[in-house]
Amino acid sequence: MMAEDNERWIDPQRVESYIQELAQYGAHGETGVARLVYSPEWVAAQDQVAAWMEEAGLRVERDAVGNVWGYLDGSNPQHSIIVTGSHIDSQNPGGRFDGALGVVAGIAAAAALRERHGQPERTIGVVSLVEEEASRFPTANFWGSRAIVGRIVPEEPRRLRGYDGVTIAEAMRDAGLDPTRIADARRDDIDTFVELHIEQGPFLEQEDVPVGIVERITGYRQYLVTLEGAANHAGTTPMDLRRDPMAGAAEIISGVIDTAHRMGRPCVTTVGRVNVSPNERAVIPRQVAFTVDARSPDVAQRETLLTRHEALMHEVAERRGLTLTVRVDSDRLPVASDPELVSIIAAAAAEGGVPAMVMSSGAVHDAMQFAEIARIAMIFVRSQEGISHSPDEFTSARDAAAGTEVLARALHALVYQS
Amino acid sequence: MMAEDNERWIDPQRVESYIQELAQYGAHGETGVARLVYSPEWVAAQDQVAAWMEEAGLRVERDAVGNVWGYLDGSNPQHSIIVTGSHIDSQNPGGRFDGALGVVAGIAAAAALRERHGQPERTIGVVSLVEEEASRFPTANFWGSRAIVGRIVPEEPRRLRGYDGVTIAEAMRDAGLDPTRIADARRDDIDTFVELHIEQGPFLEQEDVPVGIVERITGYRQYLVTLEGAANHAGTTPMDLRRDPMAGAAEIISGVIDTAHRMGRPCVTTVGRVNVSPNERAVIPRQVAFTVDARSPDVAQRETLLTRHEALMHEVAERRGLTLTVRVDSDRLPVASDPELVSIIAAAAAEGGVPAMVMSSGAVHDAMQFAEIARIAMIFVRSQEGISHSPDEFTSARDAAAGTEVLARALHALVYQS
Repeated sequence: MMAEDNERWIDPQRVESYIQELAQYGAHGETGVARLVYSPEWVAAQDQVAAWMEEAGLRVERDAVGNVWGYLDGSNPQHSIIVTGSHIDSQNPGGRFDGALGVVAGIAAAAALRERHGQPERTIGVVSLVEEEASRFPTANFWGSRAIVGRIVPEEPRRLRGYDGVTIAEAMRDAGLDPTRIADARRDDIDTFVELHIEQGPFLEQEDVPVGIVERITGYRQYLVTLEGAANHAGTTPMDLRRDPMAGAAEIISGVIDTAHRMGRPCVTTVGRVNVSPNERAVIPRQVAFTVDARSPDVAQRETLLTRHEALMHEVAERRGLTLTVRVDSDRLPVASDPELVSIIAAAAAEGGVPAMVMSSGAVHDAMQFAEIARIAMIFVRSQEGISHSPDEFTSARDAAAGTEVLARALHALVYQS
Repeated sequence: MMAEDNERWIDPQRVESYIQELAQYGAHGETGVARLVYSPEWVAAQDQVAAWMEEAGLRVERDAVGNVWGYLDGSNPQHSIIVTGSHIDSQNPGGRFDGALGVVAGIAAAAALRERHGQPERTIGVVSLVEEEASRFPTANFWGSRAIVGRIVPEEPRRLRGYDGVTIAEAMRDAGLDPTRIADARRDDIDTFVELHIEQGPFLEQEDVPVGIVERITGYRQYLVTLEGAANHAGTTPMDLRRDPMAGAAEIISGVIDTAHRMGRPCVTTVGRVNVSPNERAVIPRQVAFTVDARSPDVAQRETLLTRHEALMHEVAERRGLTLTVRVDSDRLPVASDPELVSIIAAAAAEGGVPAMVMSSGAVHDAMQFAEIARIAMIFVRSQEGISHSPDEFTSARDAAAGTEVLARALHALVYQS
């Protein structure tokens, strides 16, 4: 049950109006948002976030990659800081909530704490992060959080090129930032990062619970698999003489999907992208390339899944006389939340009267990057039908406020002297 | 064994020099040809063909779609005519021999008969046909032969648009032809059509025989299969809740290829084209569309193959909760050659000392269209490694001359009083 309204720290109207107003920057159709990093609409949205932070009584700073920080300074500057936040860049187009809700929830929570409890002992930082989605620069995901943890390599700014042909260094300059200063964004003063985010999946809705507490973020490996055979005439080449990469690709795609299905929840494998060459109706293809995205939040299950996938790729290619190239584009072990943080968040939910369940995250998030330098946890908020990365993404104002309530109470437990 | 050189009717040098010279029109790299119908290089090539026909003593006419006809007029104009020929348009790029060899072989054969035997009783027509490949206009294949048999429907000239955006009516006008007169190309005076063509497959090479006599041209059905499911996040959607069209497509693609392989020669099934939407690495696709091209020269085997393919498409889609759309883009029963023509060609090969085997054609050809109005047969010439629709396509001058020898002797049997 929700706490009585007079016990709530968070005004649902405040969170809702932030979401609605932020959605005007890069608005796409009725409910969508296309707000690509370093674009004029993204710059205007970050300015709006900074203005809201100032209105909420936070001290605003911007770092070298364009992350906006708002601080509710603590009375004891010795302590390392407690950070919350998420990203405001969107898919192209995406919805209003992915990322954005975590930023505005952080501002609303810090504002409520200041109004209700005054100055904390430890400093709270609310951060609005840069380019989580990689929707403008295909391989620049987690750009803002990677800068903070020091995982951007020196060539990246000049090398990473967006779908529009512009390098990320050029885009940074267009947004008034100096790409030679990226290393300045690195921090070593963060104790804790708590990210609030919409679930982007169906579990909370299926369990009829508004809030999830993430104890583990999935590990994953993403492959680009390329099979090469011999292109030939579709009518005149007998089946038994073909080296058909389409036959091999279909067998591998069927197999990896079936493997993940049989291994059961929570592991998942997706083939989202296929490119065929020459892609002609009456020509046996020369080459078929496809992606495999395999995930599990369980370390051992992830290993089993990947071992089976890779064994299948090699077996099929060898049996069919195809040349196989397997490129690993990203690879990450599961990240565990800090158990004490999970307990603090669970207690905060109970105090606030917000039903919550402990779960794992199948999506990846900025919190994974922060895990390099701080203890982390996440708060999930129910997504309607689990839809995400789409203008149809929706989270009710009531659920958004419930998640923010849990965030505020958890931050309270972390930054005020008890 | 080949006949002694002094017994040969055909000069290999003549056929070879025609091929080499024709390959200069639309030359692509060292050995390729990109000669799209109604293009300036195609117009120039047809003019060259017409010039060679005149040099060979044939009476030249052009019909309403641009087919070039060269006649060796017979002494008895009552008789319907005996036609040979093929097409000079190419894939983009293709090789020097596909189509072109049949045209120049026809000219060389008619020239040799005139020089050696004088006026025939029945008229021989040598025809250089328009747009067999559909390499400029995706659905205009057999444009020239369809005009002759009256299978071009009235909307087609305005409706069919090339990869370059031009309608075929506009392209005809650019080549000096009047698209409103297409019906004038229709004929009802053809008794026999014998097409010489490269094999485009590996059988003759494997059997070490230079010439094939086609007793049957494959039947086929070409499908566009579209599966729709629910797009969703690759990380957060459990396998058991997915409606993943990629999983369904892979299962169907594997299945149809396996079915054709298990049913054995001569049936073949090819999936040459796949298009995925949205085609993103971390998104379960909303839609996967793919082509299925299934062929057999045997009527009953073709039916069994198609029945199995269609049953699988429906079963997989239903079991996986996917919306299935099956569009049949083309559908054609096998076409049998005339048995008497097959015997005449076999006798001609024996007379000329050219080793030949009776076989079926897995590729489709203009001869299939002529079967609507005439008895048909085909002469195949060995292709190196079976490669076709590629600049790597190759047929030796010796094999090209051997095929032309058989054609000339078969035509002799058909048009001269014995």
